[in-house]
Amino acid sequence: MTASMDNNYQPSYEEAPTRSCLFRAVGLFTGDMHLCREWLVVIQLLDWILRGVAQVMFVNNPVSGLLITAGLFLQNPWWALNGLLGTFVSTVFAMLLGLNRSDSGLYGYNGTLVGILMAVFSAKGSWYWWLLMPNMFMSMLCPVVSSALSSVAIKWDLPIFTLPFNILVCLHVAATGANHPYFPEVHSLKIFTHSKSIQWLYCTSFLNLPVGVGQVYGCDSPWTGGLILLALLLSSPTICFHAMWGSAAGFALAAPHKDIYSGLWGYNSALSCIAIGGVFYVLTWQTHLLALICALFSTYMTALALPACTWPFCLSTLIFLLISSEIPLVLHIRDSHTFRHAWELRYIRGEGVRRGSGKKTKMRTSHFLGR
Amino acid sequence: MTASMDNNYQPSYEEAPTRSCLFRAVGLFTGDMHLCREWLVVIQLLDWILRGVAQVMFVNNPVSGLLITAGLFLQNPWWALNGLLGTFVSTVFAMLLGLNRSDSGLYGYNGTLVGILMAVFSAKGSWYWWLLMPNMFMSMLCPVVSSALSSVAIKWDLPIFTLPFNILVCLHVAATGANHPYFPEVHSLKIFTHSKSIQWLYCTSFLNLPVGVGQVYGCDSPWTGGLILLALLLSSPTICFHAMWGSAAGFALAAPHKDIYSGLWGYNSALSCIAIGGVFYVLTWQTHLLALICALFSTYMTALALPACTWPFCLSTLIFLLISSEIPLVLHIRDSHTFRHAWELRYIRGEGVRRGSGKKTKMRTSHFLGR
Amino acid sequence: MTASMDNNYQPSYEEAPTRSCLFRAVGLFTGDMHLCREWLVVIQLLDWILRGVAQVMFVNNPVSGLLITAGLFLQNPWWALNGLLGTFVSTVFAMLLGLNRSDSGLYGYNGTLVGILMAVFSAKGSWYWWLLMPNMFMSMLCPVVSSALSSVAIKWDLPIFTLPFNILVCLHVAATGANHPYFPEVHSLKIFTHSKSIQWLYCTSFLNLPVGVGQVYGCDSPWTGGLILLALLLSSPTICFHAMWGSAAGFALAAPHKDIYSGLWGYNSALSCIAIGGVFYVLTWQTHLLALICALFSTYMTALALPACTWPFCLSTLIFLLISSEIPLVLHIRDSHTFRHAWELRYIRGEGVRRGSGKKTKMRTSHFLGR
Repeated sequence: MTASMDNNYQPSYEEAPTRSCLFRAVGLFTGDMHLCREWLVVIQLLDWILRGVAQVMFVNNPVSGLLITAGLFLQNPWWALNGLLGTFVSTVFAMLLGLNRSDSGLYGYNGTLVGILMAVFSAKGSWYWWLLMPNMFMSMLCPVVSSALSSVAIKWDLPIFTLPFNILVCLHVAATGANHPYFPEVHSLKIFTHSKSIQWLYCTSFLNLPVGVGQVYGCDSPWTGGLILLALLLSSPTICFHAMWGSAAGFALAAPHKDIYSGLWGYNSALSCIAIGGVFYVLTWQTHLLALICALFSTYMTALALPACTWPFCLSTLIFLLISSEIPLVLHIRDSHTFRHAWELRYIRGEGVRRGSGKKTKMRTSHFLGR
Repeated sequence: MTASMDNNYQPSYEEAPTRSCLFRAVGLFTGDMHLCREWLVVIQLLDWILRGVAQVMFVNNPVSGLLITAGLFLQNPWWALNGLLGTFVSTVFAMLLGLNRSDSGLYGYNGTLVGILMAVFSAKGSWYWWLLMPNMFMSMLCPVVSSALSSVAIKWDLPIFTLPFNILVCLHVAATGANHPYFPEVHSLKIFTHSKSIQWLYCTSFLNLPVGVGQVYGCDSPWTGGLILLALLLSSPTICFHAMWGSAAGFALAAPHKDIYSGLWGYNSALSCIAIGGVFYVLTWQTHLLALICALFSTYMTALALPACTWPFCLSTLIFLLISSEIPLVLHIRDSHTFRHAWELRYIRGEGVRRGSGKKTKMRTSHFLGR
Repeated sequence: MTASMDNNYQPSYEEAPTRSCLFRAVGLFTGDMHLCREWLVVIQLLDWILRGVAQVMFVNNPVSGLLITAGLFLQNPWWALNGLLGTFVSTVFAMLLGLNRSDSGLYGYNGTLVGILMAVFSAKGSWYWWLLMPNMFMSMLCPVVSSALSSVAIKWDLPIFTLPFNILVCLHVAATGANHPYFPEVHSLKIFTHSKSIQWLYCTSFLNLPVGVGQVYGCDSPWTGGLILLALLLSSPTICFHAMWGSAAGFALAAPHKDIYSGLWGYNSALSCIAIGGVFYVLTWQTHLLALICALFSTYMTALALPACTWPFCLSTLIFLLISSEIPLVLHIRDSHTFRHAWELRYIRGEGVRRGSGKKTKMRTSHFLGR
């Protein structure tokens, strides 16, 4: 029966090119919408890439990804282009390698960060096209390192966060250095002073928060940070609130240091705060407190080295996720499958905003890059 | 029946405040000794803290802890105070986090070391009260890091030793550095030359041994070292003997280097020797030899960097505990529960000194911070 | 019955020394060949040592080991002597510790490298006999570290490669340094320029390949490299081909750098290429490609530090072995026992050359130092 239906549909697909222009335009959306089949791969890939861009902030939502991409283009089109290329190469190579679970952009977000940060760290400036070569090689290695780290971390039910990005970008920066003939790196202190016109903004503490969040993507424009916060709000107010809360905790500890780096003090603590308070633990006031302590710990590590990629976030959050407490209120979200399904059902029914303990598990489960 | 007995006791507790002064003094020890209930928490906490201080040397005995605390006050009251505060904060936060097994001081000993060493490394000198702030924050993180590392190490039945202390103190020293406005660190080479009056003591090799043992707590006074050795002897002659044996091995290898650091060469090898020879392996002449090799290996690592916290001890001992030998005489003490119980029974019967293979397991099991 | 047969044999053994010289020579090979019993231990040990020397390149064949040893003596007899001593001490101590699986030279190959490289890195030049002391101590620690790392790696079915060698040699070099009174180390850049007469050889790209392979053992003579390639060919053409393929990949990436180090760019990628393409994966064109990518990744890491022991090889290959792919063509060789037996049978039947997917598993299984 199914086969005969396929046969019935097939002819309309064959005759399509012979119709007139108007009919063809109408035909795009009527009948079996055959063009959709052809475009489906492209749309699917676009969906993966946008989800990948958003997954950096634990958000699994293509519209959020679109907003963040817009923010990246606002900051620097060359960086945004490198980021998208990294996401694309990373996702495609993961498929070629036969890694599963690429449907939530989970093999893309490390590629995004690798692409953007390699462009940020390059001393050759924008539109140096040769940079795409190491960019593509490193993005290609992202799913390899991701899969390897997942195999290790799965023994403790741990996510891998942005560790592949940290490893690969640090490797690239250390391997090329400031004097490489083709791919020199900028001196670390000069990296984040390029847009001096907005230094006075750092004085106003209100703008510090979005800038801190924006620095996750290496961006110091408050507009970009604002767009990213909007993208978080769209997906989950809990995540958005914890991002600002963590960013503020970072600034509090960075107070005695020079203002110029202030944007760099917030992004690790913002990520830590999101992970502990908004994604991997059931939301109680105890976990709220734990998220704040984790954000402070993360900021403490940030003091070791600037810029530090997202090592402080990864290490501090992994430590806090490994705590084996006996208090029922400090509860890991373990039985992810049940919760995830429940959340997805609610989302479909239009209750997309995640609130309470049972609903904010999708992020966590989808962030496991495991088998 | 029990309920009615409770009711009988309860009245005497209610009437107590109304009696005369003499009767009240007598009442402290007679009847249901109700004050004990109120004081029990304080006494219990004191017991935990003293056990925590002693657990640094694998000793689970509050009297040993008291002796060691006395030694610390002899060296420097400010350091001792910081150590006690660290132990207190660490133990209390472990309880708040709902971590079990704090009854043997196992969530205290890292806090002890963190407190003492942060005071030792501080360039602001003694009685700089602001230091208590980072001290308390770091001590608070001790049970968090301990629990996280235990979750990892439990897969190989490994203890975590003083790794949390190493991680947190190195983090603090690296994050603040020598030029921090509020919490500067001393230059590493100047740390251990503060008591120059006793430098001539290093020449006499006999005094080197207690000094090496005392350096576990950052103390270079031979009197403190002697008190610590006495505390070890009180709990277990095996541990005491191995501490001296390991300390001597450290000095043997440190011979070509300057005498001034000699105290620093012994403490890692002393701890390694205790762990392999006195705690985690059944005592045979093969394990004696293994303990000596491990102590030499530990000293080799010490040469990498001075002062090195207790990294060399932790790494070398973990390596030696991971050996999977087939010789029955090189036996890990695995079935800890049986042995432990046997030892506890013997202790109660007054045979407190641990000798032979079946009795020295309490330390090992109690040192597992696992679930 | 067996006992009486032993009695029958025993007399001929007792009478042997009383016979004449000619009879004794004949007696060596006739009768019960009793001398064989006495010599068996020596021959067995020699077999283990030669297998250990060859196992550095994943080859489990004493004749290959003999060829490689010849190559080492051709380069520098002092280095070769240190290498053999390291293998001997390492193997014997593994037996004393009761570690199993020493029958394939698997507790020897780290000792080989430790011995050779400690001689290479020593600033005291050849025939400095005191060097044998740390050499023997470090070789003695090889089986200890190997067993410990295996206990960890066995959880993920991973081999440990030359990690013990990396750890111990780096430890020794860092602990002694350039100014040690007894065991100074050469400055790293001067290490590999000692044989300047053959620098012009590096220009000819054909000779680069064997030199790159020879650098696994720290040798820069093309003759030594050629002998090693011959030893690989003898055991397995697949391994030999991948060694050259990986060495070439290393040179391709090293192109912009000075020629003088060219030999050092190839050995890590050669080892990575052997491991992925020739030993641990079933041979398909996908794994061929994967081996090439791993070799490039390994070269990328090499750029971090020169000389880098074999860290880049170990880390990159471990990452690629941890990939959990769902493509059936990218297949780990897991059920090692079946394959190994099949290969051994083929070897006995004279089909010693390993070709195709079912036969090249012996190396992999034998390289697991696990229980």
